[in-house]
Amino acid sequence: QIDSARLWGSIHETAQFGATAKGGVRRLTLSGEDKQVRDWFRKACEDAGLEVHVDALGSQFGLRKGRDMSKLPVGIGSHLDTQPTGGKYDGILGTLGALEVIRTLNDAGIETEAPICIVNWTNEEGSRFAPAMMASAAYVGDFTTDDILSRKDIEGSTVGQALDSIGYRGDKPVGFQKLGCFVELHIEQGPILEAEGKTIGVVDSGQGVLWYDGKISGFESHAGSTPMPLRRDALATLSEIVLAMEAIAKKHGPNAVGTIGEAVIANPSRNVIPGEIAFTMDCRSADGAIMDALDHDLRAAISEIAARRKVEVKIDLVWRKPPTHFDPKLIAAVENAAKTLGYSSRRITSGAGHDACNLNTVMPAAMVFVPCKDGISHNELEDATQPDCAAGTNVLMHTVLAIAGV
Amino acid sequence: QIDSARLWGSIHETAQFGATAKGGVRRLTLSGEDKQVRDWFRKACEDAGLEVHVDALGSQFGLRKGRDMSKLPVGIGSHLDTQPTGGKYDGILGTLGALEVIRTLNDAGIETEAPICIVNWTNEEGSRFAPAMMASAAYVGDFTTDDILSRKDIEGSTVGQALDSIGYRGDKPVGFQKLGCFVELHIEQGPILEAEGKTIGVVDSGQGVLWYDGKISGFESHAGSTPMPLRRDALATLSEIVLAMEAIAKKHGPNAVGTIGEAVIANPSRNVIPGEIAFTMDCRSADGAIMDALDHDLRAAISEIAARRKVEVKIDLVWRKPPTHFDPKLIAAVENAAKTLGYSSRRITSGAGHDACNLNTVMPAAMVFVPCKDGISHNELEDATQPDCAAGTNVLMHTVLAIAGV
Ligand SMILES: NC(=O)NCCC(=O)O
Ligand SMILES: NC(=O)NCCC(=O)O
Repeated sequence: QIDSARLWGSIHETAQFGATAKGGVRRLTLSGEDKQVRDWFRKACEDAGLEVHVDALGSQFGLRKGRDMSKLPVGIGSHLDTQPTGGKYDGILGTLGALEVIRTLNDAGIETEAPICIVNWTNEEGSRFAPAMMASAAYVGDFTTDDILSRKDIEGSTVGQALDSIGYRGDKPVGFQKLGCFVELHIEQGPILEAEGKTIGVVDSGQGVLWYDGKISGFESHAGSTPMPLRRDALATLSEIVLAMEAIAKKHGPNAVGTIGEAVIANPSRNVIPGEIAFTMDCRSADGAIMDALDHDLRAAISEIAARRKVEVKIDLVWRKPPTHFDPKLIAAVENAAKTLGYSSRRITSGAGHDACNLNTVMPAAMVFVPCKDGISHNELEDATQPDCAAGTNVLMHTVLAIAGV
Repeated sequence: QIDSARLWGSIHETAQFGATAKGGVRRLTLSGEDKQVRDWFRKACEDAGLEVHVDALGSQFGLRKGRDMSKLPVGIGSHLDTQPTGGKYDGILGTLGALEVIRTLNDAGIETEAPICIVNWTNEEGSRFAPAMMASAAYVGDFTTDDILSRKDIEGSTVGQALDSIGYRGDKPVGFQKLGCFVELHIEQGPILEAEGKTIGVVDSGQGVLWYDGKISGFESHAGSTPMPLRRDALATLSEIVLAMEAIAKKHGPNAVGTIGEAVIANPSRNVIPGEIAFTMDCRSADGAIMDALDHDLRAAISEIAARRKVEVKIDLVWRKPPTHFDPKLIAAVENAAKTLGYSSRRITSGAGHDACNLNTVMPAAMVFVPCKDGISHNELEDATQPDCAAGTNVLMHTVLAIAGV
């Protein structure tokens, strides 16, 4: 059994780095707050006797030796960055839970056959730089390191500049640390486990993701003197797109969602009809065919709206992540650990993307979910209970022991 | 006859202060560019022999003596501030046209019975500080000077601070310069004169304006893991409001318009359902009863949308300007000047608000419109011809001479 109080203490101690007034955390990737939590994590890893390395994208790797160093390490971990209005658990539980596993094994003097490597992946959230799960995507070869280093945030800073500014451009090439498999603990970020009174979600699949950048070019004009029929209003156009996306996602539901999270009017003024808007779209489904249908229906709706309103709408697909099907053997290992420990569980699909989804494309991967309050995540009010966090970490540890061998 | 080339030269010389790449002007009120054009205008007034004063809200007054100084001056002028993506004529034609009238009278050695006062009103546009036509509103007593001085821009700077930062907080109290009447020359900012081939618009009325500040409070949540039916999406709510306002304005049309010009998502992120949005609304009609109907229908629509989507929407009416009916005698004087000079003309309603609309509440006022290309205004592509600008300025001069007496 892991030390529930110590785990809880780590979560709340690190929540100070970027703490918000509403009890959440604002710790954008590669920000000053991210540096603080990274420094804390490095020291904690070193204190736990791990050999710590940082790769060229800033991901932190802490290696615990196994009896048989010819075996590839079992990877565990998650991320320590958050959304602009994020919570204390998303990613953090999985990273500090991995640290807790190491500390528990150390205290119990348990040596494993295979080594264990705990990881803090850079920019899982994707809100400062796109795409989300950026560093694990480069790790599995979906993007080159140089491509990712050149990605820009809204202020125009690149990932490379941001890494340098906090001193976390590591000396190891991306992919230097080979892993044999990867298991990630996470809060569910959805309402199902809580509603059904289950402690553990055995994640067998994950939704695919489509991310788009959009731009509407209408025509700026006077709010008072431009008759309604003559307008080419970029905001009215966006409004139709937002509602069309909502209708399309509902039509393909329940296994589909669609969101416009960012929309910025260029040179806004109260008495000017908006002429230009930049926006983003996020569509998801666990079913690849539905993803294709979402893409098709969305493009068709946008073309119709743009033509009717005589505005130009440009849509760029900037990221497509297919649905994830986790490794059957690892799924069984997680399920077995939950059963052995006496926790109620159910199979579940992840609505969110995770680093484990990327790793699963090149090695066996799996995930452990625990309930979160009212399914709320990407919100400062995100919450989870100490017993649930401890239960998930115990399942993570027993899964690791089963895979690594004692 | 005024000097068309000199007028044209002034317009294009001052257009350098805040010139944009697309050929427009970005000269927000009380900005550095506004200081530049104010300095230019003061010097031009002094060179034309005017006595120049600045009031506590930064409005510039240049007085030309009349034979009978017991008579109140005839006021003419407009404004030199622009929209963020404004044009070279909106306000500028009326202010530099007034200067051109003075220069022409000087050259011709014409003395008038009543004095003439040319005015550059502060913040007519209303895009940096609300309301629009701010300084003329304080002049006529709609707001106190202190109230206006405390208005804030989006960065939190007050009008008072902005005035001090460019050295234009004048030593004269607002209202120090009494005026007997006011005549404002302006581009139409709408398509009617051009479409009908008329040179002069004799403005007999102006639309009333309703300005609102709005705030939507939904709930931030994960874009991937929050099922569509459980969302409380602030942007989807805004989208319904935008389209409802469009439908309501059309329903009450053609004598009604409605615009949402500003909308800002708090803490936007691609994979977060927007939780909070601040926005503005601008509704107009030349008919007071329609203004009331717009307000009523809009509030009803917003209540219904908010209740159905389980979000909170707060609406504050921050400005209500009733429709304007200009002074019949002054309207006739404008019409007569156009006729005498041989220009085609028609009566017209102003879609935009103007300082003359405020002044009309305490003294006789009127306006002269000239065509602008395709009715485009509040856009960098705003355009007008040199002959039309000269024609409008001639009508302004002859109207002034008729009122002031030679
Ligand atoms: N787990 C999580 O919230 N990841 C962020 C990436 C995404 O799914 O949008
Ligand atoms: N004339 C003009 O564009 N005024 C700005 C105020 C408004 O009507 O919105």
